[in-house]
Amino acid sequence: MKRWKLTIEYKGTDYCGWQRQDAQPSIQQAVEEAVYKFCQQNVTLHVAGRTDAGVHARGQVAHADLPDRDISGYELAKALNAHLKPQPISIIKAETTSEEFHARFHAVNKLYHYRIINRSPFLTFDANLAYHFKRELDVKAMQDAATVLVGHHDFTTFRDTGCQAKSPVKTLDRLDITVRDYDGQGGREILFALEAKSFLHHQVRNMVGTLVLVGEGKWTKKDVEAALAAKDRTKGGPTAAAEGLYLIRVDYA
Amino acid sequence: MKRWKLTIEYKGTDYCGWQRQDAQPSIQQAVEEAVYKFCQQNVTLHVAGRTDAGVHARGQVAHADLPDRDISGYELAKALNAHLKPQPISIIKAETTSEEFHARFHAVNKLYHYRIINRSPFLTFDANLAYHFKRELDVKAMQDAATVLVGHHDFTTFRDTGCQAKSPVKTLDRLDITVRDYDGQGGREILFALEAKSFLHHQVRNMVGTLVLVGEGKWTKKDVEAALAAKDRTKGGPTAAAEGLYLIRVDYA
Repeated sequence: MKRWKLTIEYKGTDYCGWQRQDAQPSIQQAVEEAVYKFCQQNVTLHVAGRTDAGVHARGQVAHADLPDRDISGYELAKALNAHLKPQPISIIKAETTSEEFHARFHAVNKLYHYRIINRSPFLTFDANLAYHFKRELDVKAMQDAATVLVGHHDFTTFRDTGCQAKSPVKTLDRLDITVRDYDGQGGREILFALEAKSFLHHQVRNMVGTLVLVGEGKWTKKDVEAALAAKDRTKGGPTAAAEGLYLIRVDYA
Repeated sequence: MKRWKLTIEYKGTDYCGWQRQDAQPSIQQAVEEAVYKFCQQNVTLHVAGRTDAGVHARGQVAHADLPDRDISGYELAKALNAHLKPQPISIIKAETTSEEFHARFHAVNKLYHYRIINRSPFLTFDANLAYHFKRELDVKAMQDAATVLVGHHDFTTFRDTGCQAKSPVKTLDRLDITVRDYDGQGGREILFALEAKSFLHHQVRNMVGTLVLVGEGKWTKKDVEAALAAKDRTKGGPTAAAEGLYLIRVDYA
């Protein structure tokens, strides 16, 4: 057997998320079925970070042990993609790796993006690919409040109650918010970029939902400070829509 | 009656183009039907630039005369969008204009983009939204050859044989080609930006198809010069795929 590292791009809209579930299409199932068609063996994929229903990935990483074959990464990606097509799931890189490599345990950094399209007209190109927020948002206030969340904290307030991580304490290395013209007519794209070694379940979406309250003027930076200090999910803002979230990149040492 | 200027965004994939055709869904028909539902009158839209089947727009412009009503542009766009949804067609701006305004005849500049995604794996997010070109392209050679086409020329070589324009002589003010990382795995997005007061039918796609021949190393800059000088469509390159083309903006004096 040979261990392969696969980098995967997918549009999560029509999937129940990464993980296999009975009677619902998952990304994991789609890729494992492509692997089966390639080598006629049932192979389990181990993923860097499970994504929820509707969440997208530009650079998800998974590893799998495949039977030895004289095949290049380019050829393996091509073969798997032939089976995946026309599903919106594409292996953008396949490479052999050491037998010890683990996509989840060896990740040293993850980059997520969260996209908000802030305009009144509904979305065409970005339907299901961004969170459509119609009312005005104060990006400066959001940027200022975001600084509260960066660093080493107990993130219980922003952790889904079903989260299975051992500890709610994490280090958020980066939470940048940038804004740019979207449509030439006043519409704006507000992009959140978040980096950490690992995140709690729903952490990004719960932090974004909270910062949107600040953008709306309903909350202040002080409210975000108090919410974080409370270590209580009921004191945090709502969970922002799945469709705005992208796993962009997973880094390894 | 009041004359309105509408700025329209649409994904052209599932449409036969802007113009109404029997038994095929067109952008024009969709918007005119939305107008009918709004005011119970059959109103004809006059467009800045007809787009072909599969071509997209980020800022198409059309004008129409609507019955007098005390309504703001914001409200009109909202009302029409309520009827257009969930089609991938959105009125991103509606504004009243003078009775003389003509979306097509008064346009002083148009900006088109043509997107190529240059990588081996098939497209997920950009399926139908860019031209997927798998083999390597020499962008520098394309940029150099593109300079041949800028300026005042007889563009017969790049004009569809069915084109109804009176003259093949046009001034191409800009043809920039830029390249950027697309997927973090070597995939690149090659973006063509073209500006002129007006274009011939298929001119952008025929010029792009010709420059792709240069990118592949099949043609040189000199071949492009010779093709332009020939004033003969059969001496030009192929018509690049519709799905890469976007009408981005129409400017008025």
